[in-house]
Amino acid sequence: MVRIARLVIDPPQLEKYKAFLKEEIETSLRVEPGVLTLYAITEKKNPTHVTILEIYADPEGYEAHLKTPHFIKYKTGTEDMVKSLELVEADPLLADVKIK
Amino acid sequence: MVRIARLVIDPPQLEKYKAFLKEEIETSLRVEPGVLTLYAITEKKNPTHVTILEIYADPEGYEAHLKTPHFIKYKTGTEDMVKSLELVEADPLLADVKIK
Repeated sequence: MVRIARLVIDPPQLEKYKAFLKEEIETSLRVEPGVLTLYAITEKKNPTHVTILEIYADPEGYEAHLKTPHFIKYKTGTEDMVKSLELVEADPLLADVKIK
Repeated sequence: MVRIARLVIDPPQLEKYKAFLKEEIETSLRVEPGVLTLYAITEKKNPTHVTILEIYADPEGYEAHLKTPHFIKYKTGTEDMVKSLELVEADPLLADVKIK
C-alpha cells in the first residue's frame, strides 16, 4: 500500500513541525513492522512544502499505524501547523524497489 | 542528492511510457552504484500523473547517470510521451531512511 502525502506547513512553525515529524518517522520505522518506509523531503525552493512517500506492508499495517501513540502525538501536536494536506493513493511502478 | 520528478504522460502512450521507465529504473539500480533509488508511482485517481523519488549518492552519481545509454534511451524514447515535467530539488528530513 503506497501513498504520497503533500503538506504545506505554516512558515513560523516549520522547525517545530519537522521535529514532530522526525520523531514520528523514527519511532514508526523502529517499532512498526507494517510501516515499510516514511521518506520525507522538503523542497529546496519552498521549504514549507513537504512530501512524504508512505509505504505500508498492507492496509492492516496502515490501520495499526493510525492507532499508535506516536502517530496520535504527531497528528494532534501538528494540527495547527499544517496549512494543507493532500493524500494521494498510488501504485508503485516496481513494487520491489529499495533504497541502497 | 534528492529530487522529486513530477510528470504528466500523454494518456494513449501511458503503457508504452511505463515500459520505458521500468527498464530504465531496473537497469540504473542494477548497474549504477551512484543511483541509490528511483522509486516511481502513478496516482490511482490520475494514472497519467507520475512521481519519482530520485536519490543519488552524490552529484557525480547523478551526472554519470545522465550519460548512461539506458538513461539516454529512456529520455529520447519518451520525449513525445511526456506532456509536462517538473524537477524539484529537495532535502531529506532524515537522510538514512530506507525501505524495509
